[in-house]
Amino acid sequence: MGKQRFLVIGGGPAGLSAALDLHDAGMDVELVEKESFLGGTPKKLHYSLIAPDLKPVEEVLDPLIKKVEGAGISRKLNTTVSSATIRDGVVTVKYASSDGKQAGGGDFDAVILATGFTHWDPHKKYEYGYGLYPDVIDFKDFEAMLSSDRLERPSDGKMPKRIGWLLCVGSRDRQVGKFYCCRLGCAVSIKQAMEVKKRHPEIDTYVYYMDIRTYGFWEDQLYWKSMEEYNVKFIRGRIGAISRGENGSLIAMAEDTILQRPSEVPFDMLILTTGMEASSGTVEMAKLFGVDIEEHGFVKPLQADSMPVHTNVDSVFVAGTATGPKAIPDAITEGSAAAMKAMNFVRRKVPLVA
Amino acid sequence: MGKQRFLVIGGGPAGLSAALDLHDAGMDVELVEKESFLGGTPKKLHYSLIAPDLKPVEEVLDPLIKKVEGAGISRKLNTTVSSATIRDGVVTVKYASSDGKQAGGGDFDAVILATGFTHWDPHKKYEYGYGLYPDVIDFKDFEAMLSSDRLERPSDGKMPKRIGWLLCVGSRDRQVGKFYCCRLGCAVSIKQAMEVKKRHPEIDTYVYYMDIRTYGFWEDQLYWKSMEEYNVKFIRGRIGAISRGENGSLIAMAEDTILQRPSEVPFDMLILTTGMEASSGTVEMAKLFGVDIEEHGFVKPLQADSMPVHTNVDSVFVAGTATGPKAIPDAITEGSAAAMKAMNFVRRKVPLVA
Repeated sequence: MGKQRFLVIGGGPAGLSAALDLHDAGMDVELVEKESFLGGTPKKLHYSLIAPDLKPVEEVLDPLIKKVEGAGISRKLNTTVSSATIRDGVVTVKYASSDGKQAGGGDFDAVILATGFTHWDPHKKYEYGYGLYPDVIDFKDFEAMLSSDRLERPSDGKMPKRIGWLLCVGSRDRQVGKFYCCRLGCAVSIKQAMEVKKRHPEIDTYVYYMDIRTYGFWEDQLYWKSMEEYNVKFIRGRIGAISRGENGSLIAMAEDTILQRPSEVPFDMLILTTGMEASSGTVEMAKLFGVDIEEHGFVKPLQADSMPVHTNVDSVFVAGTATGPKAIPDAITEGSAAAMKAMNFVRRKVPLVA
Repeated sequence: MGKQRFLVIGGGPAGLSAALDLHDAGMDVELVEKESFLGGTPKKLHYSLIAPDLKPVEEVLDPLIKKVEGAGISRKLNTTVSSATIRDGVVTVKYASSDGKQAGGGDFDAVILATGFTHWDPHKKYEYGYGLYPDVIDFKDFEAMLSSDRLERPSDGKMPKRIGWLLCVGSRDRQVGKFYCCRLGCAVSIKQAMEVKKRHPEIDTYVYYMDIRTYGFWEDQLYWKSMEEYNVKFIRGRIGAISRGENGSLIAMAEDTILQRPSEVPFDMLILTTGMEASSGTVEMAKLFGVDIEEHGFVKPLQADSMPVHTNVDSVFVAGTATGPKAIPDAITEGSAAAMKAMNFVRRKVPLVA
């Protein structure tokens, strides 16, 4: 019998973490990533700073990427898994390259799905006019704008004087069929507002919210700090619609649920804080490996409360946002946990239940 | 050189998980617990059901406990660590028994601190009259009441007709010096209200909140469900004080920040949802091992965003609520991650930074 072999699908924070830990434990690891680079969605979309320490994404992820690259872990970029069978504890996969051609394959003792999430498409919230008004922007686009230190209104290239954030776009919204909370929208939006105020204190920043969910230490590190040190303003209420105002402005029409009256405020730019949903890769890999999907469309852990990185299929483990919205540190932690469980499963065929 | 030896301090969810994973990986593990039983605070305080699946705590933790007991992992109950030195990569500890006597010790290659949290003491929020009014109860006491299926007013043993929950007692409160959010109070309180309504639909249940933080899937699994299926009611506003009403009732005095007016509502029982802080064990062990404490009083991870289970001290790792408020599944996951990192550290002296 040869060395134990592990396949990690997805090169984002969770997959990088799992691959590295398995390698460090002396295992043979192959990492498959459909993009041409490692780092996952945070890299792909050019995230700026990461809450709560407001560190650049590069500072958090690049050491992981460098270690994976430096360790000699087998990496297949521009590659997806096109077929999978599991027989007698052996996972056999075939790969396809990005142009759809067959690209080899292999046998493995266990697989970790770290196939991630995607941002909800704000076109579907039609009353916000995303795609119609150039100055209504998705928060991931704004994140890239902050990363490149280019703060300007798309319609005319001018510096905006008043920016608003609309939280929960495609989250907590029965109308669009997305019931759950994205766990990160509040924190990321507040962080973005602080980044704006830090660079341009003269810009007015307003966050429209239903509940501010800066749980744990984010409460003082982000929420209080944004109000007290950066003068970010918060308005409780959900925007009903966005309409065109005079001189190229946008009107955010809301019911202010604290002041108890309709509110119509003109803005130069409005940023839609979109929710998270399972990526197409997550859905496809779940299907390919026969892994259950839960009611919100993500991979269903074997037991959400005690076995969050196991799936219903022996030999197949899961980590990161494939099982639901999650912050980068939590995805990294889950990557380590999945590596541990996969390794012990292969090593001793540890039974899943006592 | 003998087998690699690991010490896990604390037998709650995180410690159990770490000990079991290390054992399954073929390592030699010793688990030290100051109480006379395993299971940590959830067992000690007789938690009832666990969100979001509303499973009994026993169903989640007992399989872990049984596996740890059945695996032949060395367990030292009623035991604390009384001294610790680290030299040349060897961690030498001495133990004390619960009566303070010396109780042996040992040499280890690495240590995992899983020393947990404690609930904030609501006596300190004097205006709520905890300790003065018998029907003002801490939510952990109410959890034990639910566990024993005994729902009665402490003052007279009668079934309450109207119960209120006060969220964020000792959380998000500058007055008492606790700035952070406890991450779990909203979910646990809503879960408690649902448990009440399930058994006694005729009881009125009100939750006083500032923001409802049922992040992720808790949004529909708990918050929406509690309103739509159980008719739990929510009032936005913080209770200023509790006073005595007529016929043994309690008056919750609040500013309703949605209706914009003072609100005084009589209740038969009021439940204080207290925050979380580092346990005395966490503080003591941090001191003993020279591990840094962060601004909220918990153990400071080496890097919160990428190394959440490392500490500033080589050979010393951390998992669970010792680093901050955390749900049971997250503590279990961190236990696995800490086991992985500790093992790789010992195995290859894997450098912490690339």
